[in-house]
Amino acid sequence: MALATPDGVGAIGIIRVSGKNAFQICSTLFFRKSGLPVDISKLNSHSIHLGVLKENDLVLDEVLLSVFKGPNSYTSEDIVEFSCHGSRYIQQQLIQLLIRRGARLAEAGEFTFRAFFNQKLDLVQAEAVADLIASTSATSHQVAMQQMRGGFSSKIKILRENLVNFASLIELELDFSEEDVEFADRKDLKQLVLSIQKVIQRLVDSFELGNVIKNGIPVAIVGKPNAGKSTLLNVLLEEDRAIVSDIPGTTRDTIEDEMSIEGILFRFIDTAGIRQTSELIEQIGVSRTFEKIQKSSIVVYLFDVHELTKTGLNSEIQEIKEHLNENSQLVIVGNKIDREDLSYTEKEFASFKDILFISAKERRNIDALRKRFVDLFDSRTINVTETVVTNARHVQALQNASFALEKVYEGLNRNISGELISVDIKNALHHLGLITGEVTSEDLLSNIFSKFCIGK
Amino acid sequence: MALATPDGVGAIGIIRVSGKNAFQICSTLFFRKSGLPVDISKLNSHSIHLGVLKENDLVLDEVLLSVFKGPNSYTSEDIVEFSCHGSRYIQQQLIQLLIRRGARLAEAGEFTFRAFFNQKLDLVQAEAVADLIASTSATSHQVAMQQMRGGFSSKIKILRENLVNFASLIELELDFSEEDVEFADRKDLKQLVLSIQKVIQRLVDSFELGNVIKNGIPVAIVGKPNAGKSTLLNVLLEEDRAIVSDIPGTTRDTIEDEMSIEGILFRFIDTAGIRQTSELIEQIGVSRTFEKIQKSSIVVYLFDVHELTKTGLNSEIQEIKEHLNENSQLVIVGNKIDREDLSYTEKEFASFKDILFISAKERRNIDALRKRFVDLFDSRTINVTETVVTNARHVQALQNASFALEKVYEGLNRNISGELISVDIKNALHHLGLITGEVTSEDLLSNIFSKFCIGK
Repeated sequence: MALATPDGVGAIGIIRVSGKNAFQICSTLFFRKSGLPVDISKLNSHSIHLGVLKENDLVLDEVLLSVFKGPNSYTSEDIVEFSCHGSRYIQQQLIQLLIRRGARLAEAGEFTFRAFFNQKLDLVQAEAVADLIASTSATSHQVAMQQMRGGFSSKIKILRENLVNFASLIELELDFSEEDVEFADRKDLKQLVLSIQKVIQRLVDSFELGNVIKNGIPVAIVGKPNAGKSTLLNVLLEEDRAIVSDIPGTTRDTIEDEMSIEGILFRFIDTAGIRQTSELIEQIGVSRTFEKIQKSSIVVYLFDVHELTKTGLNSEIQEIKEHLNENSQLVIVGNKIDREDLSYTEKEFASFKDILFISAKERRNIDALRKRFVDLFDSRTINVTETVVTNARHVQALQNASFALEKVYEGLNRNISGELISVDIKNALHHLGLITGEVTSEDLLSNIFSKFCIGK
Repeated sequence: MALATPDGVGAIGIIRVSGKNAFQICSTLFFRKSGLPVDISKLNSHSIHLGVLKENDLVLDEVLLSVFKGPNSYTSEDIVEFSCHGSRYIQQQLIQLLIRRGARLAEAGEFTFRAFFNQKLDLVQAEAVADLIASTSATSHQVAMQQMRGGFSSKIKILRENLVNFASLIELELDFSEEDVEFADRKDLKQLVLSIQKVIQRLVDSFELGNVIKNGIPVAIVGKPNAGKSTLLNVLLEEDRAIVSDIPGTTRDTIEDEMSIEGILFRFIDTAGIRQTSELIEQIGVSRTFEKIQKSSIVVYLFDVHELTKTGLNSEIQEIKEHLNENSQLVIVGNKIDREDLSYTEKEFASFKDILFISAKERRNIDALRKRFVDLFDSRTINVTETVVTNARHVQALQNASFALEKVYEGLNRNISGELISVDIKNALHHLGLITGEVTSEDLLSNIFSKFCIGK
């Protein structure tokens, strides 16, 4: 039993009770408004009933009770949900009352774990439930939804089926090994392994995108002190997140926050200004900035159009480029066009392609900058409707399966015995099975479900 | 339409749609998992259905849909509730989708207002819903629950019925006024007015208790600097609320927080230490302390048993008593018994009755102090199962009704004409009607319901 709605005061709070004694326990405390007792097990599944919660003669609340009879419920067990007034006091009292009647508090993710245990969901789908709840952008939501509805699971299932067929052919050979028959054409087998590897590789490759979809595309904003980085961050995040002042070097920590633009999640990172400095704390800030550049998919180099000549800009960009990683993209942005006629500025920096001129302070051209981010993402995009892996655990398992399959392929090349090949195939099957939970361990499960919220 | 569960991330979020187009609007976006459309108006009331929310071909979420057909619903209108995954993103998207389909966001308290408008609840019951959600202790919860279930309303209804009878007798006289008949025995009438006045007075009197139940019994903790007031407050509140230090005069602001003891809500008030001081800020603190004493139901005078003799204690208590209001009670508490043998202390202060010796630091005798608070409350208690008025608006209306009835009584004494008496009776009826909402105004209603949370 657990509170299933967010903690806090609201119109409605829902307490969910699941398990084989749910109906019996809840029947001891739920009554019609007339005072008549109710045998919940006699009520129809998926029906709702108005009544009161009572202990002795004290009415705790007027509630709606929803009945779900297993296996037609989230957990596949009998479930009662009390929809009570959204007061913390009432929720706490009801939870205490249920405990006195023999229920116990659910652990984090326990309802979803039971759904998995009772084969309502596989492990990928269960993990997708948590991702779905945590998703904050259209793309991350869409990927989680697709996984919850079984998109990724069915891919893995097909891979496993192919491998099982493969394995059974090899096993058949082993049974007839004395006769030295080859049921499985070695060439066909190699072809099959290669095609499975190709699918796995595509899934593994999708993780870079998946990770970025789930956690946001890291965008570092860098530049000299007082170029307006914090102001730009605030404008992009549409709130006052960073402390802004005219004193160069105000931002020492790197500040991060996310924002969804056209359904894509970006994680913006403000950084300490890059300059030669003798002050220790600021030095640390600058070196941290270079680390951030390394890890970002998009690096915005922001400069004050009044402070730099084209020569100066050129040498700045060279320095940044040294720290850029191979996959990240540089966006050069000239700031503070509020203070001057734009035509001069454009002439001075005409030799640089793709410079975007903005005024963070006056919010000019910010939408163009946002659009630039979205375009950069689009150009690198795999179609999101394709299966995308967003979970490090899944990638790990896919890589392990791939590693086992490499051995299979090698074995086939070297014509080693079916017995040894069979071991590697089983190993690959094992790792694929870990993804969806056909194969599992207690550690793995507790690790996955403990990250859920209570009540899910 | 509004989110009915607390804002935030949880297992479940509920979006409620109420009104005559609710079924039609929701039917455009809710589908069976198979993709088949659903005509919600054809579903049974109080039934739950699994399905998906879809716009174009994009699945937003898998949800449970609950159907309530008016008038058997909270608002008395057709209601659809979507129980979706508790992600902010999903909730926002669903709300946007509903708006695109023609629904609009509900105002604060609008569902309850509609319940009132459709005569599901009277005004007292509607206000009790808000109190119920806000209640944080057993007694405040119980009073709100009793009001929501109609306890107070039925009292008012009986008063009104009595007055209506009274009025109709007077009116009858007016119809036959030329014949100079007295249908209503003046003595009986006076008796009736007196008995109604008595009931009203008891309700008005109950407000002191009601207010204290709802907002907590104010307990001021006073004493010399460094007597351990802040430490005691922290111990009572079971948290580190006040800044504690050994420097006398650390607490300058008065600090308040509430705590429920045995179901009764107490509001503890830490105060600046009382001493002669030349420092301005501290002087303000001391004078504020005397104000707090005036407003408290219980005043705890805390002293360090090592710092005061019985003579000193005596003069201190005299000073406090000068600031005490007539209804408040003084509790004398000797602190820091940790540092000495108790027998000496007890002997020194033997002449004072009811001193409680504690050690705030070592948490000794704190439960005894808590029990003292509860006992003091109990001794002043009206039985909570009796009707208690907790709402200043209700008291105001009762007092106005009482005032009108006084005029009726006077009129009867002075034998003035039935016409004039009738005006005052109607006035009394008007004020009683304001309480339950038989009489109402737009201002009053918007004032009441705007204090509700969105979604209720």
